[in-house]
Amino acid sequence: MNNCNGKHVISGGNEDAVTFLRSVFDLVIKEGVERVKDASTPVIDFKNPEELEQILDLKIPMQSSSHDQLLHYCEQVFKYSVKTAHPHFFNQLYAGLDPYGFAGQVVTDVLNTSIYTYEVAPVFVLMEKYLLRHVRQLIGYEGGDGTFSPGGSYSNMLGMNLARFNKFPQVVRVGMRGLPRIVAFVSSQSHYSNKKNAALLGIGIDDVIPVATDNCGRMLTSDLKRKIEESKEEGAVPFLVVGTCGTTVLGAFDPVDEIADICQDNNIWLHIDAAWGGGVLLSSKHRHLCKGIHRSDSVAWNPHKMMMAPLQCCIFVTKHDSVMKNCQSIQVPYLFQPDKTLYSPEYDIGSKVIQCGRKVDVFKLWLMMKAHGNIGLESRINKAFDNAQYLAELVKKTDGFKLVCDPECTNVCFWYLPKRLRKLEWRLDDKAFCQKVAAVPPIVKEKMTTSGSLLVGYQPLAGMPSFFRMVVINDELTKSDMHFVINEIDKLGQDI
Amino acid sequence: MNNCNGKHVISGGNEDAVTFLRSVFDLVIKEGVERVKDASTPVIDFKNPEELEQILDLKIPMQSSSHDQLLHYCEQVFKYSVKTAHPHFFNQLYAGLDPYGFAGQVVTDVLNTSIYTYEVAPVFVLMEKYLLRHVRQLIGYEGGDGTFSPGGSYSNMLGMNLARFNKFPQVVRVGMRGLPRIVAFVSSQSHYSNKKNAALLGIGIDDVIPVATDNCGRMLTSDLKRKIEESKEEGAVPFLVVGTCGTTVLGAFDPVDEIADICQDNNIWLHIDAAWGGGVLLSSKHRHLCKGIHRSDSVAWNPHKMMMAPLQCCIFVTKHDSVMKNCQSIQVPYLFQPDKTLYSPEYDIGSKVIQCGRKVDVFKLWLMMKAHGNIGLESRINKAFDNAQYLAELVKKTDGFKLVCDPECTNVCFWYLPKRLRKLEWRLDDKAFCQKVAAVPPIVKEKMTTSGSLLVGYQPLAGMPSFFRMVVINDELTKSDMHFVINEIDKLGQDI
Repeated sequence: MNNCNGKHVISGGNEDAVTFLRSVFDLVIKEGVERVKDASTPVIDFKNPEELEQILDLKIPMQSSSHDQLLHYCEQVFKYSVKTAHPHFFNQLYAGLDPYGFAGQVVTDVLNTSIYTYEVAPVFVLMEKYLLRHVRQLIGYEGGDGTFSPGGSYSNMLGMNLARFNKFPQVVRVGMRGLPRIVAFVSSQSHYSNKKNAALLGIGIDDVIPVATDNCGRMLTSDLKRKIEESKEEGAVPFLVVGTCGTTVLGAFDPVDEIADICQDNNIWLHIDAAWGGGVLLSSKHRHLCKGIHRSDSVAWNPHKMMMAPLQCCIFVTKHDSVMKNCQSIQVPYLFQPDKTLYSPEYDIGSKVIQCGRKVDVFKLWLMMKAHGNIGLESRINKAFDNAQYLAELVKKTDGFKLVCDPECTNVCFWYLPKRLRKLEWRLDDKAFCQKVAAVPPIVKEKMTTSGSLLVGYQPLAGMPSFFRMVVINDELTKSDMHFVINEIDKLGQDI
Repeated sequence: MNNCNGKHVISGGNEDAVTFLRSVFDLVIKEGVERVKDASTPVIDFKNPEELEQILDLKIPMQSSSHDQLLHYCEQVFKYSVKTAHPHFFNQLYAGLDPYGFAGQVVTDVLNTSIYTYEVAPVFVLMEKYLLRHVRQLIGYEGGDGTFSPGGSYSNMLGMNLARFNKFPQVVRVGMRGLPRIVAFVSSQSHYSNKKNAALLGIGIDDVIPVATDNCGRMLTSDLKRKIEESKEEGAVPFLVVGTCGTTVLGAFDPVDEIADICQDNNIWLHIDAAWGGGVLLSSKHRHLCKGIHRSDSVAWNPHKMMMAPLQCCIFVTKHDSVMKNCQSIQVPYLFQPDKTLYSPEYDIGSKVIQCGRKVDVFKLWLMMKAHGNIGLESRINKAFDNAQYLAELVKKTDGFKLVCDPECTNVCFWYLPKRLRKLEWRLDDKAFCQKVAAVPPIVKEKMTTSGSLLVGYQPLAGMPSFFRMVVINDELTKSDMHFVINEIDKLGQDI
């Protein structure tokens, strides 16, 4: 609709849309920003799928719904969703809510554009170029290129794709059929996306060679060396090593500098999956964990994890200036008109990435960086490490708790034993004992979920019985929250 | 920070964060929702990259910034960004702003979760299952599976990956080396992502065989048949045909029913790229354009295009129940614990997709569907078609304008001739003439961009001189807006 003076009314068929939006914003502040911070409220009001499907009115109607009805739906979404910003949500590699990141995201949402050309995203194209350069400088690259991506798995895929192209540029035209057998090396505790990506890229999971780790999950470079030699003897071509800075479960940092030596000697692309641990780059106290990362060829880093940027916020960078363009560009005159007169085509950045349309993810991170400054973000990272260290010490000295490994990162992994198991001898080589230990986390998890007091994930690893992985991110947490976790698990589990 | 009663203050280091958020919301309403609808304001306040970099203060500071400063940055972002919701933005396959979709997106943002497990996204997992089933029913599939994806290119990639797996399941383990030469067929006017995806998947661009089209951009099935036979004679294995419902430039719909016959006879996976044209499925008046789509194996559809959902909102569905799981799952005990006690593992939907973390895209679309109902969304689609039809007629009867093709979709493609060229004979086989015609759009585009009155894209196609592609989506548009476009282009260009 429009009226005679050229003013268009708000889409949605009625002029109350702004009133509706204001009501939604009020609800977002109340339920999504304020209430979730109150530790005395539940993290989750859990319903099983069958119950929840009964509660929610999911079907798509023929007729439009009223604003009251729509607000009710929003209220229900808040009520039954997990409060990931709640101080006792420790379940994932993300947590908390940064109000500046959130504000940036809302501005991005309403501007609703795609970051492929300067023509439709001038501010964001500049901002992305600037921020990606800043990240490359943090890593220690000179020059290079990069992009935001829709996930860490996707970033790792870009690393694998560029590594393959770097060795065999003909792959773009002739595919894997024109190549010898190529093999990638990842630690046995690296992210599963490396396998998924190898399957997707037509390399095959069998040619992703797992490298052994030490007891704390760090890649053993002696094993890497041996495996590379073996693969060469078999006639394969090693094209990629993925080192991990912050493994998913234990938070281990592979020895990047040593791996870089090996890659250099063997002319292999080194991709660093720092999706989780990359946050330490901001901290002069902890960035030594990534020592040597500037020697890599590419890096994946998700600021939506340790930095508390809103999801999705994932960065991929490479030290090489033109490899993205050479590997991934295709001439697309309908989108990237080379005869544009107003600016240089280099600002149309969409060609060099795999995606066509791409959501703007840069502004929320940029605004956060402006809001906190380097100093604020550094103290956020340091605080998470301090809390994790405190929790690890607490685990060590608390009856019924046993640390899996001294944490390198802010993952704290521990077993919990109910009273009845505490008198048994701790023997990981005893299958019957391990089964008893492994049976505990699912029961405690059920109890914490139904009570809504706490969410912490658990998993098995490398044949060990399941343990809790507590991930400390949220910079509002204090030592008293660490005590809460220990006390609550013990309260829920001691008599099971 | 927290205080003694367990209440945590808002992250960001000070308690004014809520006040700041309210100010941002006010700005979003004023600049992002209300002002952009006013046709008398510019679509873009254009600055070239060098100027804009001077205006914006892009550097990352050491110290934190004040709320006033941050608000100023947000104001600048609004000022210098393209107003894609402006009634005269016709540049892309998205436009307008649906307030309900936007509201849903903000709720999703603040809840900040990833849709891989029921454990962290119970409401959204159910909603996604429900909505994807609804979409499959719209298409005419019985059963099947699907996911939201970060883009149409990504959805097409999933189609290609599943098609390959369907024919050669061993590819997941052994890669393309274990396969014969496999070939895919796409029309010469299909989306460029098909080539990019073939390069990425290790198939190679050379094995994406282009199929000829008719004058309006529709795939010629006679040519498809011949190319399939030829490839078989060469010993290749045809594994995929991609049909397009709504090509990017002309908006052509391939004859899906005829293509489905050919795929059936040859046992080839049929993927339909309906990223752009899929919106017609909602309209009983226009859905005949996709006739036969229920016979496809998979479909990509982007509701962020013709349906006006906020970016990114992309759907991939397949008619096959377990192919996604069989092709793309990997056992990941750290995330998808099979010993969970509270609900069935089938609700942990993350395993069957390529991504690990995945942004929630379902709620904005679901809320829009509730808000408008089927009836409201159908009239949105019908209105866009009516406006496009009206514009095409206007182009036909206006001096200096020439239609490239009668529109099947809501793309209206036309050449514009300044007065000095109007007396020349129209001859596309005359190179000198074509060069004169092709030189016009870049100049008119520069004038519309710097004046900020209008944004319409232009491009060459199939050797023809560049023409304007006007995309009609926004359901607030009226016939008078169509007149505005014609008048404005003529005003800017008649004397060049």
